[in-house]
Amino acid sequence: MQNALITFNADYAAALDDDRLEEWPGFFTEDCFYRITTEQNQRRGLEAGLVYADSRRMLSDRVLSLRKANIFEPQRLRHLVGLPRVRQDNGGELVVETGFAVLRIVRGGSTDVFASGRYLDQVVRQPEGAILLKRRDVVCDSSRIDTLLAIPL
Amino acid sequence: MQNALITFNADYAAALDDDRLEEWPGFFTEDCFYRITTEQNQRRGLEAGLVYADSRRMLSDRVLSLRKANIFEPQRLRHLVGLPRVRQDNGGELVVETGFAVLRIVRGGSTDVFASGRYLDQVVRQPEGAILLKRRDVVCDSSRIDTLLAIPL
Amino acid sequence: MQNALITFNADYAAALDDDRLEEWPGFFTEDCFYRITTEQNQRRGLEAGLVYADSRRMLSDRVLSLRKANIFEPQRLRHLVGLPRVRQDNGGELVVETGFAVLRIVRGGSTDVFASGRYLDQVVRQPEGAILLKRRDVVCDSSRIDTLLAIPL
Repeated sequence: MQNALITFNADYAAALDDDRLEEWPGFFTEDCFYRITTEQNQRRGLEAGLVYADSRRMLSDRVLSLRKANIFEPQRLRHLVGLPRVRQDNGGELVVETGFAVLRIVRGGSTDVFASGRYLDQVVRQPEGAILLKRRDVVCDSSRIDTLLAIPL
Repeated sequence: MQNALITFNADYAAALDDDRLEEWPGFFTEDCFYRITTEQNQRRGLEAGLVYADSRRMLSDRVLSLRKANIFEPQRLRHLVGLPRVRQDNGGELVVETGFAVLRIVRGGSTDVFASGRYLDQVVRQPEGAILLKRRDVVCDSSRIDTLLAIPL
Repeated sequence: MQNALITFNADYAAALDDDRLEEWPGFFTEDCFYRITTEQNQRRGLEAGLVYADSRRMLSDRVLSLRKANIFEPQRLRHLVGLPRVRQDNGGELVVETGFAVLRIVRGGSTDVFASGRYLDQVVRQPEGAILLKRRDVVCDSSRIDTLLAIPL
């Protein structure tokens, strides 16, 4: 299972880094939950998030908005994803925690650490063997919120 | 074995990043060795270290001191740990080398690279299958020593 | 195979980070291809590269030049290499893509992100089981080219 999770996270990261955002919702189940929050809010039990979606369709809408807005300065992201730690595994469903960092490469500028944190995932095994995210909480270390953070992490 | 080492390092990193410092000594054998040093000192064969402990108890003392002092500015760390390279494996004991980087997220501030380097480990297999550190030398790339480096890496 | 690739990349990174540059050509086949390019050039289909070699011998020459020139400021590199994504696998040969970031630690200074990007590899299995690079395109995220980039990545 460890290997399947590693491959899954590598594919997820590559889709975002290659700006293949349209493929992003496909990593989730139809009926899913996704949000970006901060460690501080997570500890306080706040459910709100910077980005919030409770279906694959909302994720697709989010991508469409990003494509239409297109207000971003030219930049590239580079995900550095750690090894997954399986916290629970009851057959069909797993709770997994994975550290990550995202570098941002601004055109003509330097590279900085855009975000770091951990993915808190509920992962489900599909009948055909693939795995999908039923829920991903992206818990960012920093509480300083970059307005650009509306992009998927 | 590779998988056991990867999981071990992921758990070790998560304990530090989650500020569960009290769990840190538990990754070592009772009679152990831990130090933080620099690449420069390592090459010169200098045994001194910024942080130095030769028993699990000394590691616990170190944690107690940190909790009491509590002088740190609010910050979070995020470990990025590479894949372990097994250099020697004679049954019960392994020599392993693993690259790492640690990001520091200062509250309300930006994220920078706090430290990078490599873990030089002597790992021992326990009878029940678990693995523990008999020795970990944290060899930092930079020779510029941050006074905060007294925290476990 | 995943494990063999991970070990290979970890060894490759360690050779560069430890300044064992003379071992670097040994990761390639005799008749190989290596270049460092940018994502922008890669997308435009430009074949030119900052560093370019089409044989193991040219890689060795490159190392010799670096040793002779020795004009670099004292620095260390630290590779953070992601998990390999196998894109094609037709028995003896694989196409693999792997994200990476390289930190630069300048003596007495701070640590910054020197480069990030992805390795696009053609990997060949050797009769005795080892794997070697037949081709590695180092595609850097940033288009801003550091003159120091003539060092192997």
